[in-house]
Amino acid sequence: MAKVLTPRAENYAQWYNDLVIKADLAENSAVRGCMVIKPYGYAIWERLQAELDRMFKESGHVNAYFPLFIPKSFFSREAEHVEGFAKECAVVTHYRLTKDLENGGLKVDPSAKLEEELIVRPTSETIIWNTYRNWIQSYRDLPLLINQWANVVRWEMRTRLFLRTAEFLWQEGHTAHETKEEAIEETLKILDIYSDFAENFLAIPVIKGRKTETERFAGALDTFCIEALMQDGKALQAGTSHFLGQNFAKAFDVTFTSREGKLEHVWATSWGVSTRLMGALVMAHSDDNGLVLPPTLAPHQVVIVPIYRSPEEYAATVDMAHKIGTDLKKMGIRVKIDDRDTQKPGWKFAEYELKGVPLRIAIGPRDLQNGTVELARRDTLTKETTSMDALHTQIPELLESIQKQIFIKAKTFRESHIYQIDTWPEFLEAIEKGGFISAHWDGTPETEKMIQEETKATIRCIPLNGIEEKGTCVRSGKLSNQRVLFARAY
Amino acid sequence: MAKVLTPRAENYAQWYNDLVIKADLAENSAVRGCMVIKPYGYAIWERLQAELDRMFKESGHVNAYFPLFIPKSFFSREAEHVEGFAKECAVVTHYRLTKDLENGGLKVDPSAKLEEELIVRPTSETIIWNTYRNWIQSYRDLPLLINQWANVVRWEMRTRLFLRTAEFLWQEGHTAHETKEEAIEETLKILDIYSDFAENFLAIPVIKGRKTETERFAGALDTFCIEALMQDGKALQAGTSHFLGQNFAKAFDVTFTSREGKLEHVWATSWGVSTRLMGALVMAHSDDNGLVLPPTLAPHQVVIVPIYRSPEEYAATVDMAHKIGTDLKKMGIRVKIDDRDTQKPGWKFAEYELKGVPLRIAIGPRDLQNGTVELARRDTLTKETTSMDALHTQIPELLESIQKQIFIKAKTFRESHIYQIDTWPEFLEAIEKGGFISAHWDGTPETEKMIQEETKATIRCIPLNGIEEKGTCVRSGKLSNQRVLFARAY
Repeated sequence: MAKVLTPRAENYAQWYNDLVIKADLAENSAVRGCMVIKPYGYAIWERLQAELDRMFKESGHVNAYFPLFIPKSFFSREAEHVEGFAKECAVVTHYRLTKDLENGGLKVDPSAKLEEELIVRPTSETIIWNTYRNWIQSYRDLPLLINQWANVVRWEMRTRLFLRTAEFLWQEGHTAHETKEEAIEETLKILDIYSDFAENFLAIPVIKGRKTETERFAGALDTFCIEALMQDGKALQAGTSHFLGQNFAKAFDVTFTSREGKLEHVWATSWGVSTRLMGALVMAHSDDNGLVLPPTLAPHQVVIVPIYRSPEEYAATVDMAHKIGTDLKKMGIRVKIDDRDTQKPGWKFAEYELKGVPLRIAIGPRDLQNGTVELARRDTLTKETTSMDALHTQIPELLESIQKQIFIKAKTFRESHIYQIDTWPEFLEAIEKGGFISAHWDGTPETEKMIQEETKATIRCIPLNGIEEKGTCVRSGKLSNQRVLFARAY
Repeated sequence: MAKVLTPRAENYAQWYNDLVIKADLAENSAVRGCMVIKPYGYAIWERLQAELDRMFKESGHVNAYFPLFIPKSFFSREAEHVEGFAKECAVVTHYRLTKDLENGGLKVDPSAKLEEELIVRPTSETIIWNTYRNWIQSYRDLPLLINQWANVVRWEMRTRLFLRTAEFLWQEGHTAHETKEEAIEETLKILDIYSDFAENFLAIPVIKGRKTETERFAGALDTFCIEALMQDGKALQAGTSHFLGQNFAKAFDVTFTSREGKLEHVWATSWGVSTRLMGALVMAHSDDNGLVLPPTLAPHQVVIVPIYRSPEEYAATVDMAHKIGTDLKKMGIRVKIDDRDTQKPGWKFAEYELKGVPLRIAIGPRDLQNGTVELARRDTLTKETTSMDALHTQIPELLESIQKQIFIKAKTFRESHIYQIDTWPEFLEAIEKGGFISAHWDGTPETEKMIQEETKATIRCIPLNGIEEKGTCVRSGKLSNQRVLFARAY
C-alpha cells in the first residue's frame, strides 16, 4: 500500500496536516480558521476532557457556564487585558438579517444595530469577574473554585488544525480567594494537575516553569506553564495557570468582608488547556505510519481483525473474534471488532495503524487450529504469535506497558534535546537543530526581544526546578542568576 | 423562617423565577438575554447530559463538533429554513477592535469588515450539510449518525431563564441515510429515546406526537415532539425530532452512489433538546418550598445534618454523620455531609429543601443513644425515625420509590388535566383552566391560526397514539378524522 502520509523527515508540517486529516481527527471548515472536529478526533477529546474534569472535581472544583458574548466595554476595564485580548476578535454588531430585495439572499438589517457591540469571548475573565461581584460578599463565600468547558474565538490570521484555530474548545478555570498566598497555592496546584495529566494520561513529558514578563497572560501578575517538546524539536505550551493578583477584582470592583471585618479585594487565578493538546498529542508520539495513541486515550485500545479466504473461514474466524472481543470488553477494555467483509485485512491493518489503535489481534484459520492469535503493537510495530488463553493477562499488561513506553520514548527524546549552551555562536548553531536550549539570560525584555528577533527562539519558561547558578547572559554577557529554556515554539 | 419563594398560587411566573435564582440554578447576565448557569444548576445539567449522551452512544451515535459561525449565504440555500432561522440572530460583521482615540475605550475597526457576515449558529443544519457533502460518496458511507453538544444563539426579545434565552446549550443530532424509510425510522427512534429519557430519568410524563405544518421545524417535512404539562396547566415542548427529507441534501448538493449504482440525494433527520429541559424539570415537580429533584438527577441524593448544642455533641454527631455518609457513598449514593458549624440546623433544612435534595438524614444526641436517625423525604415533606442499621437497605429503596412517586404525581396531574372537548364554548371555558384540550380540528392552517388568535392556544401535537375517530372541528364545524391536543404553551 502506498504511504498516505508525507514522511516527517520530508516535511514535518505537511506530515502533521496529512495525519490530522487522514486519521479523521479534524478538517478545515467553510468558515475561515474554524475547524470541524470529526467523530474520531472528538472521541479522543472526550476522553481527555473526562479525565481532566475528574481531576478538577476531585480537587474541589465545580463547573458552571457563562455567556458566549462579552460587552465591548468590559475589555477596557483591565488595562493590560485589553491590550492582549481586545484586538483580533469576532465582533457582533447586529441582531437581525432581512431579505436583500436588490441583490437577492439576505442582508444585515441596518435598523438592528446593537447599542453596544458584543465580543465573542476570547477568554472569560471579564464577564466572570463581573458576575463574581454579586456572588462574593464575605470570606465565607470564598474560595470560589469554578471551571467552564466552552468554545472561544480569537481571530487568528494563520491557522493550523488544533494548534491555532479561530474557534477552539477549552476549559477555563476562574477561582477567587481570600489571600494572595491561597491564590498562588491554587495556581501551582493546577500546574501540578496539568503536569500530572500531561505525563500520566497523555504520556507527554512536560517542564513546569514560569513565563517571563513578556510572555505573561495579559492581566496576570505571574503565569506558569507546562512546556512540551515535539518531534521536530519545536516546543509547545500545553497549559497555563495564571496568578491574577487583585487586578480583575479591582477592575470589576469585587470586594469581600475579611475575617477581620475589613473590606478587601479578592485574589484571583485563571487557568486553561485547549484542543491544542490534540495537536501536541499527535506531534509528540506519532510516526510516518500514522497516529500513536496512549492506551488511556485511545477510543479503541484493541482491534480484532479476522483473516480468511473462504466463507467457512470467515464464519469461524469472525466467531472467534467476537468471542475474544466479548471477553476483553468484560474486562473493561475498549475493543473494536472489524468483521466487515467489504475490506481486505491489509487495508484494515493500515487503517488501524493510521488511527493509532495500540494493539491489533489478527485471527486466521491456522490460529484457530493452534489456539493462537497474531498480536501487534502499534508503538513498536512489532508482532508476535501468542496463545489465545494468555490474552486476558497479556492485553492489560501490554496496554500498561505501551502507556509507559510511549512516555519513556518521548522523555528520552526530550532529554537528548535539551542543550546547555553558554556562548552565542553555540546558541545560534543549537537553535537550528531544534530542542530546548538551557542558557543564562540577563532578565531584561530587551535582550529577550533581541534573541527572538535574531533567532525566532522565545523563552519558553524559567523552570521551577532550576538550580540557582551564577552566570553571564548568552547574548548580552550581563550577569544572570538562573538558566532559562529557549526554543522555537508552536 | 420566612418563605423565600413567591407561592405558586399567587404568581406562578414569579415563583419560577424566584426558584431558579434562589436555588442557585441560573441568573441573568450582563448580556441581554444570556444567562449564567450556576454551579448547582450546571451539576444537574451535567447529569442530564451524561445520561442522554449514554443513550445516544448506546444507539450507535457518535459526537463531533462543527463551527460556531455560519456564513450568511448558507441560510439562503434552503428556502424554508431561511424564513425560520435567518431573522433574529447574532451577526458578526467585523474581526477587530481598535483604540477609540476620540472617546476613549475601544471601537470597532472599520477596516476589519468581513467580506461575508457570519451568523452565530441558531441551529447547524446548513454548516453540517455543507460538511457532509465531502463525507458522503457511497451508500457505504451511510448512515452517518452524528450528535453535537453545543451553544446556540437566537436573538429572543422576551427571555426567561432556561425557558427562552438568547444563548442556550443543547444537543443537536444530524443524521444521513440511504432511504426515506430509514430516515423516518431514525426520527422516531430518537423520539422514543427522548420520551424514555423524559419519563424515566426526568420523571416528566410526555405525549409523543406530530407537529402540524404550521408548527413544523423550518426545512422539515415532518416534525415530531414530546409535550409535557407544567403545574400551571401550560404545555412545554421538551424535545423535537425532524424528518428533513432530502431538503438539505438538495440545498447543499449531497449525493451518494446507491447500491444500484445510481446517484441519489441523501435523506436526513435532525433532533434536539436543550437547557429548556431544566425549566421543565423545575416546573413539573417543584413546590412552594423549593426544588423537587428526581434522585437520578440530584447532585446530592442524601444530605446528612448533625444536630447538637455542645462541642461534645457536635463532635459525636459529626463523627456519626461521616460514618453513615461514608457507608452510603460506598454504595454509590451521592451524599453531602453538612458539618458546618457556621449555620444552624433549621437554616440547613430550609436550604436543602430549597435545593431539592431527595432525602435528609438528621442525627441528634438522642439518636446516637438510640441508634436512630430522623429521615425526611423532600417530595412528600414527611419525616420518620428509623434505625441506623436499616439505612443501607432503606435509602436505595426510598430513592427508587421517590423517583417513581414523582413521576406518578406528575402523570396523575397531567391525566386529570386532559379535557375532551367537543364544542367551542366549552373549549373557551376549558382553555382558561389550563391543561391539554383534546378536540377535533379540520386540519387547516386557517382554523389553527384563528383558534390561536382567539385563545392563545396552539396545537401542541397530533398524538401518535391517537385513535382515528370521525368528528367535527371544534371551531369550524368541518369534518375531522382525529383529535389533536391544544394548549397554551411555554
